[in-house]
Amino acid sequence: MTSDIAPYGYCRDCGKPTIETTPDGDNRLRIVCDSCGVIHYENPKNVVGCLLEWRGNILLCKRGIEPRYGYWTLPAGFMENGESTRDGALREAKEEATASCDDLKLFGVYNLPRISQVYLMFYGRLKDGYAKANEETLEVNLFDEKDIPWDEIAFPVITEVLTRYCERHSERSHQVHLADIYSRPGEPLDIVRHT
Amino acid sequence: MTSDIAPYGYCRDCGKPTIETTPDGDNRLRIVCDSCGVIHYENPKNVVGCLLEWRGNILLCKRGIEPRYGYWTLPAGFMENGESTRDGALREAKEEATASCDDLKLFGVYNLPRISQVYLMFYGRLKDGYAKANEETLEVNLFDEKDIPWDEIAFPVITEVLTRYCERHSERSHQVHLADIYSRPGEPLDIVRHT
Repeated sequence: MTSDIAPYGYCRDCGKPTIETTPDGDNRLRIVCDSCGVIHYENPKNVVGCLLEWRGNILLCKRGIEPRYGYWTLPAGFMENGESTRDGALREAKEEATASCDDLKLFGVYNLPRISQVYLMFYGRLKDGYAKANEETLEVNLFDEKDIPWDEIAFPVITEVLTRYCERHSERSHQVHLADIYSRPGEPLDIVRHT
Repeated sequence: MTSDIAPYGYCRDCGKPTIETTPDGDNRLRIVCDSCGVIHYENPKNVVGCLLEWRGNILLCKRGIEPRYGYWTLPAGFMENGESTRDGALREAKEEATASCDDLKLFGVYNLPRISQVYLMFYGRLKDGYAKANEETLEVNLFDEKDIPWDEIAFPVITEVLTRYCERHSERSHQVHLADIYSRPGEPLDIVRHT
């Protein structure tokens, strides 16, 4: 929450109000401290997650938190400092679905420029076919492709991953997908597919 | 710069000192405001860049800024809010080397967990073979593979991209590389290659 005195918030380094301005040698508006001069850059965040399969069935989690409470999703969440994208995807599978995987591979990179997020999605085999709901998940389930609840998927990017995974089921090539997604949850898919 | 009063800095939202603590329901130390309670998450940053080729030669830029002033690199830089990874790579090519590309494709994803960065590197054809140094670049040049200045490359991740690009020159498959890099600039390459 910012105040009338500091509509752009406060400096993390010195606690004084920040302003919005274009620094010398830059070409974009940045949040800059009016007292100590530090530039506070803001950058996109990565979401890492995975599609885990067991005997032809795909692991989905029913969300127990907002946004999109009660909708189905793949295990995924914000990447943490100090970890790799792959380790982050494994951590999310463990945290959200008590699930493990020994052969995780990169599936696709999905840009969500509207909300400044990049999804890095992996795929692999669900170890021992075992999964169990954790705190942030109401329920986990293994879905045959023909039973995927397409109308109850939480986010457009998850619909896209499931769609592309099912499309290529017969071939199982290792081509990685790169796509830009513009639609909000519940809207028709607005996407530019690069590969 | 932080003070004795606020060793973990100040709250962006209210300007009061923050503390380091593990919030309820979390399992990691976070920077949390002791006054308004906001949690200030910190996440890895993406670097986006590209390898552009013109008639068998690769475009490299000699860095005009620290770190690694005077060393050679591929055009690359921090991804900005509101853009896609691909658009960011194109922007960096334009900013650092006045270079364009019409057929940019994802080449590889490189994790640098030690410094909490993810490199998303693309490749394509340098449009019209044209490039020119800009403010942050001392010099641009097109290198035949046999003339790449391997001992003067700025960062391990750039060495890795160039190495893998040259290795696969004969095949030109579209397999994407995923690797975790641990070495600092100037150190022997310490890497785990996943694909």
